[in-house]
Amino acid sequence: MNNNSYSKATYRLYDDKADFHKKATGIAVGLTVGSWTDLPEAAKAQMQQHLGQVVSVSAHESDIPGERYADITIAYPDVNFSRDIPAFLVTAFGKLSMDGRIKLIDIEPSADFLSAFPGPKFGAQGLRDLLGVHDRPLVMSIFKSVIGQDLANLREQFLQQALGGVDLIKDDEILFENPLSPLVKRVEACVGAMKEAEQATGQKLIYFTNLTGPTFSLKDNAKRAIQAGANGLLFNVLAYGFDALAELAADPDISVPIAAHPAMAGAFYPSPHYGISAPVLLGKLMRIAGADLSLFPSPYGSVVMPKAENLAVKEALLDAPLPQKAAMPVPSAGIHPGLVPLIMNDFGPEVVVNAGGGVHGHPGGPAAGGQAFRQAVDAVISGQSLEHYAQSHEPLRQAIELWGVRTS
Amino acid sequence: MNNNSYSKATYRLYDDKADFHKKATGIAVGLTVGSWTDLPEAAKAQMQQHLGQVVSVSAHESDIPGERYADITIAYPDVNFSRDIPAFLVTAFGKLSMDGRIKLIDIEPSADFLSAFPGPKFGAQGLRDLLGVHDRPLVMSIFKSVIGQDLANLREQFLQQALGGVDLIKDDEILFENPLSPLVKRVEACVGAMKEAEQATGQKLIYFTNLTGPTFSLKDNAKRAIQAGANGLLFNVLAYGFDALAELAADPDISVPIAAHPAMAGAFYPSPHYGISAPVLLGKLMRIAGADLSLFPSPYGSVVMPKAENLAVKEALLDAPLPQKAAMPVPSAGIHPGLVPLIMNDFGPEVVVNAGGGVHGHPGGPAAGGQAFRQAVDAVISGQSLEHYAQSHEPLRQAIELWGVRTS
Ligand SMILES: [Mg+2]
Ligand SMILES: [Mg+2]
Repeated sequence: MNNNSYSKATYRLYDDKADFHKKATGIAVGLTVGSWTDLPEAAKAQMQQHLGQVVSVSAHESDIPGERYADITIAYPDVNFSRDIPAFLVTAFGKLSMDGRIKLIDIEPSADFLSAFPGPKFGAQGLRDLLGVHDRPLVMSIFKSVIGQDLANLREQFLQQALGGVDLIKDDEILFENPLSPLVKRVEACVGAMKEAEQATGQKLIYFTNLTGPTFSLKDNAKRAIQAGANGLLFNVLAYGFDALAELAADPDISVPIAAHPAMAGAFYPSPHYGISAPVLLGKLMRIAGADLSLFPSPYGSVVMPKAENLAVKEALLDAPLPQKAAMPVPSAGIHPGLVPLIMNDFGPEVVVNAGGGVHGHPGGPAAGGQAFRQAVDAVISGQSLEHYAQSHEPLRQAIELWGVRTS
Repeated sequence: MNNNSYSKATYRLYDDKADFHKKATGIAVGLTVGSWTDLPEAAKAQMQQHLGQVVSVSAHESDIPGERYADITIAYPDVNFSRDIPAFLVTAFGKLSMDGRIKLIDIEPSADFLSAFPGPKFGAQGLRDLLGVHDRPLVMSIFKSVIGQDLANLREQFLQQALGGVDLIKDDEILFENPLSPLVKRVEACVGAMKEAEQATGQKLIYFTNLTGPTFSLKDNAKRAIQAGANGLLFNVLAYGFDALAELAADPDISVPIAAHPAMAGAFYPSPHYGISAPVLLGKLMRIAGADLSLFPSPYGSVVMPKAENLAVKEALLDAPLPQKAAMPVPSAGIHPGLVPLIMNDFGPEVVVNAGGGVHGHPGGPAAGGQAFRQAVDAVISGQSLEHYAQSHEPLRQAIELWGVRTS
């Protein structure tokens, strides 16, 4: 079996009684050539190249009802499907997704399959290059409230967030085309604020405009936003499928970084028995499809993902051996300045500290909120405790007075 | 609250301790205006129209850990999102999908929202009109094996299935663009066989060609297939998102019925705690988006969906009060002629009897397999038992000798 011509998928399959090896063979045959043992020898010779292969079956025996499972890896011949993510997912987890308690927990597409995907245009490093920031985690701020806000209000929100020195500002994922803040006017308003803030702070910013609308209008909408000055796009990938992201990322005219929002991801990853694991969904697939940044629930907030799963998402984005550029991990929700040492300890230097309430809820306002995050980052970089650094940095002091410092 | 301007979503939320009413208010506020109680009165007056509303909270108390839950219905102002399914789903189950044990179990989009969706071009009735069959369930056959098969083989498979008198023949959902059977040539080969069979049987057929490839090429591929003679399309909706289906269905040049395949649906519906329920996913959303037929796991085979859930999918497709035409339910997997009385009893007359192995595995070959299904349908329609009818109908006799008759 040549690894360059087979793409692998690993499943966790729960069953109290099944013969897991038989089950694995059933998958390898059933999702490829359909039947095998009853084929004439001549047909077998011809069909061999299309036959799925069982790579491994690792059973975890248990007598406790509901706890016996196996991790099964199947290799699917690339010759069976086209070079797009829907084809791979429908092959590897189309019908099979409905076949009992089974979860897709890893994928290893072949080098040949992967070669069809240019991946992130910028990636983690390219994003840093755009910003000229190489020596610290990036700081992202999210609009506090966007629904029902007019352009003047959005502009002012943008400006206040930007003045504190954050690197990235993103739309809320639930801001759609609407009469109060239509796409191009919204971009123009926010880019105006961005320029004003850059003048004031001397620091570069990227604004991720939410890319929405009908599927077949996404490219046009992206280009209109870019034309109007947007230098980043936010995209609800799972509502449109991974291929839409892949094609946006591959379009040379969409010349800005794309941040993948995990909206709807909770419909896929949290069950132990069904769905697609977070490191596959929000890690490998987002990176292969071309997300420059991938947002996912942090282990710190109320929208919780266990820390081990978080770190596996991060590793898929940054370290998995893929030809696509590394994508920037953005653990999100529940982030305040007092968490920065923990985030940097958990995630390392290649991370975006992404805050909503932690910026807007600051007693000194959002500009002070942004400053507090930047000061927290500076404290960790310079090897000082937040408490000590806060003695000479008022925004940070106010932040930790309000939210405290969490070290584990 | 005007029902024409709010779209509702119902969630089942498991939590051993939560104040469900507080939780509901948190959803209604958090997914719309963001914050409410701390807004100044003037802002409240302006934001009222954007504020989500708690419609109902129905708690199911339990002291058993893991069993306490509430069904919560929230109404989202239509003014907050655009008239596309990604916008509605991201609003109603984007971030919320990641917020603990929560499953989307029903949706009730507003009349205004629904008015943006033309829905199925044909629907159940239109499909019958195309075929000229109004007095019995339709019979569909699926190719037995397609991967690695050349055009001559596919043509012959098509012909043999068609000669037995089935109404509908569909590609396998895992047949993608490939050198052996590229789209246009495959359509031409199968349409040739279709014409030959129609000559022989005097009966009309629809061939559902699998529509695959990159998202932004779907419309072109659909039109190429139709140009080559395809009079139906099969589509893996969940790999591309509901909007892709909606836009295909709304395109006047895509003038053939679309059958929605449920590939990947098992990643969404089976968990009691997470995801999207089958009647929403494979019922309401498929119909709103424009599927003329929706396939879903039957309650009879190895790929199982409980019968109550099956019937709820069927009801969403046929009976839910929606402005879109009713879509034809296609319970699939494990179907043989001996199940036809049960299927017709469970589903009523408006159903597609969809068989793969039950056609191809017939001792007399696939043409006899198709005949056996048609005879089983005729037996039920004429009020006779399969056993009695089989005495004078050899293909049916052979089928029930092999597979038996299942009555419950
Ligand atoms: Mg948000
Ligand atoms: Mg199939």
